[in-house]
Amino acid sequence: MKIAVLGYGTVGSGVVEVIRRNGDSIAKRAGQEIEVKYVLDLRDFPGDPVEKVLVHDYEVIVNDPEVGVVVEVMGGVEPAYTFVKRALLAGKSVCTSNKELVAKHGAELLEIAKQGKINFLFEASVGGGIPIIRPLNQSITADEIEEVTGILNGTTNFILTKMRDDGCDFETALKEAQSLGYAERNPQADVEGFDACRKIAILTSLAYGKHVSYEDIQTEGITKITAADIAYAKKFEMSIKLFASSRKVGDSIYALVAPKMIGVNNPLYTVNGVYNAILVHGNVLGDVMFYGSGAGKLPTASAVVSDVVDATKHKGVNIMQIWSTKKLELASNEGLVNNFFVRFPKEERKLAWDRFEILKTALLDDHDDEFAIITSPMTEKEFAERAQGMHVISCIRADVR
Amino acid sequence: MKIAVLGYGTVGSGVVEVIRRNGDSIAKRAGQEIEVKYVLDLRDFPGDPVEKVLVHDYEVIVNDPEVGVVVEVMGGVEPAYTFVKRALLAGKSVCTSNKELVAKHGAELLEIAKQGKINFLFEASVGGGIPIIRPLNQSITADEIEEVTGILNGTTNFILTKMRDDGCDFETALKEAQSLGYAERNPQADVEGFDACRKIAILTSLAYGKHVSYEDIQTEGITKITAADIAYAKKFEMSIKLFASSRKVGDSIYALVAPKMIGVNNPLYTVNGVYNAILVHGNVLGDVMFYGSGAGKLPTASAVVSDVVDATKHKGVNIMQIWSTKKLELASNEGLVNNFFVRFPKEERKLAWDRFEILKTALLDDHDDEFAIITSPMTEKEFAERAQGMHVISCIRADVR
Repeated sequence: MKIAVLGYGTVGSGVVEVIRRNGDSIAKRAGQEIEVKYVLDLRDFPGDPVEKVLVHDYEVIVNDPEVGVVVEVMGGVEPAYTFVKRALLAGKSVCTSNKELVAKHGAELLEIAKQGKINFLFEASVGGGIPIIRPLNQSITADEIEEVTGILNGTTNFILTKMRDDGCDFETALKEAQSLGYAERNPQADVEGFDACRKIAILTSLAYGKHVSYEDIQTEGITKITAADIAYAKKFEMSIKLFASSRKVGDSIYALVAPKMIGVNNPLYTVNGVYNAILVHGNVLGDVMFYGSGAGKLPTASAVVSDVVDATKHKGVNIMQIWSTKKLELASNEGLVNNFFVRFPKEERKLAWDRFEILKTALLDDHDDEFAIITSPMTEKEFAERAQGMHVISCIRADVR
Repeated sequence: MKIAVLGYGTVGSGVVEVIRRNGDSIAKRAGQEIEVKYVLDLRDFPGDPVEKVLVHDYEVIVNDPEVGVVVEVMGGVEPAYTFVKRALLAGKSVCTSNKELVAKHGAELLEIAKQGKINFLFEASVGGGIPIIRPLNQSITADEIEEVTGILNGTTNFILTKMRDDGCDFETALKEAQSLGYAERNPQADVEGFDACRKIAILTSLAYGKHVSYEDIQTEGITKITAADIAYAKKFEMSIKLFASSRKVGDSIYALVAPKMIGVNNPLYTVNGVYNAILVHGNVLGDVMFYGSGAGKLPTASAVVSDVVDATKHKGVNIMQIWSTKKLELASNEGLVNNFFVRFPKEERKLAWDRFEILKTALLDDHDDEFAIITSPMTEKEFAERAQGMHVISCIRADVR
């Protein structure tokens, strides 16, 4: 099988390296040798062995009938979308790590692949090296999926872990993440939750078979989390994570990206540093969790190449469940039920006890003008009503179990 | 698709229930309705709706050309083996939860299925509801697998968790497990590690494509673990788990079932109670972990039914990677490298410090005639040599990282 790799950045060079390094065992599993015939990049790489297969013009690839699989690892919606669509229409399977592309155009591209009896695969678009797309599609098929919750962004998980370990504030932890290469100079897509939002849109679309517009998902990042919030979490023996989550309750499907305070009994509690994990709750299966490296050159490349193996094994046979282009209408999060962690100034003490059923309470030595509570579970709407007119220092959704 | 279920015990009744409960979504994913045409059991179930499809004679099933998939959930090698082989030879796919059958005859049954362009699937045979067989086969295909380590037995994990939480001894925890239905009256298969042994034999066979005889795997249970061992583990901020593990080092493949003392940085550290988890280490992927309910009626049934869906979707197409009937020769565990947790009587203090590089040491208040150490990593052989002639109170492999 001859393949072409679009983009020789971190993931693209990883794909080439993985195929070179594990070529023999990959050939055994794919049933034939995988050969990188072309790498497309605008840049030149003098001295790099990739030079021999480097091309600057996509036409060379899309017009070469020998190329059976196109690997798209450029990122961004354009020109990726145009390239991928043309490849599929030319009868080539496509494997991509591009979450933006999949979240925006997944339904359409899956449909084209189905029509053409080829495959559009995207294991690497969510959770890096963690197998989650294929298990959702092919393993968890006996269940009604009731919840998908993931720690889907390594950068924010690193920052939150750092804040907890060192007691530092958000800015300090972000700088550390940037100096280690875990966060970009412009960290907005990660810290504001946009990256996690696209990923949970993909998982939710797959779980329920309809297209979720990521623009519809309420998305809150971690920039407002303070050292004091983390200190309270520690007092409660809990931990704050950025959760990207969707839940089915009755006929309503909710989706939300937001920080959440969770306890030690949550399987996601111990997912620290740059690791990712996804918890899936099925109505008969209960909880299963998938854990691993959510990013990084080689783990992500491993997932991309596993898709190439699958595409090679399934030449002429479409294997992906599709999600329809029909839009999934998300329910208003007003109805979503959580516990709430809330910090109030001292003056609100009486009102807080009047208005809320309080499960836990804590004080911090160096914040003696305030207190924190964790409420009983209630809807977002009910919480907003009860807290109305009160001065809230900070508020984070929580899960006490 | 019409199916037959062999055995109406815990898992068998679970399979019938899952198909009844989630029939619509299962039909959607399988591309057609799944109907239980027969249930085979020696017993009668007066008043149970299963009566309508209950048969006592296997000939009815194997001779009915309408039956496309046979679900084997009787357990034990015979008559399961005979029934399954006949079903496959009659052109029916088989889905089983039977780890003994798969560990003993997997290679042969996979080969028959391949020849007949049908499928022999066994997702539920390892890790209950956790997707692990399919991910190993279809997702982790770009990697050389360097290690598979699992907490594969819920009974022993419950007992060890109980001993840690309550400070009780093995017998007390076992009684509790029995009273809760987590351990059988004759608990030998679980507590001696035999169950975990069969499961790691299956995973190792799949990972390396050759048949691992489970009789070849060195297997130690948890019956010798004492309350004092657990108390030391707590002092070290570590935890004792029953690990079923195989490792590839160079060209040698090692396999071992034995208790191991692990630290908080091991992803398996927080797998408590009856939960199972499997950690797979690939040479490019790094660590991925799969976590969930390792047993239980509905989670196990969910895995079986997911196999039925796959068999239905792949009528006429064999999808399982096979492992050859050629025997995988395991390397002698003498060469296996670990840290060692060792308890010595006080008198051995000087010798211990002379002979071992000691990473950690601890004393227990109520055991003032002894001490415990954790050694630097060394082979089993080297450890045996160094400890020769010394009085060892207890010794457990450890992993300090």
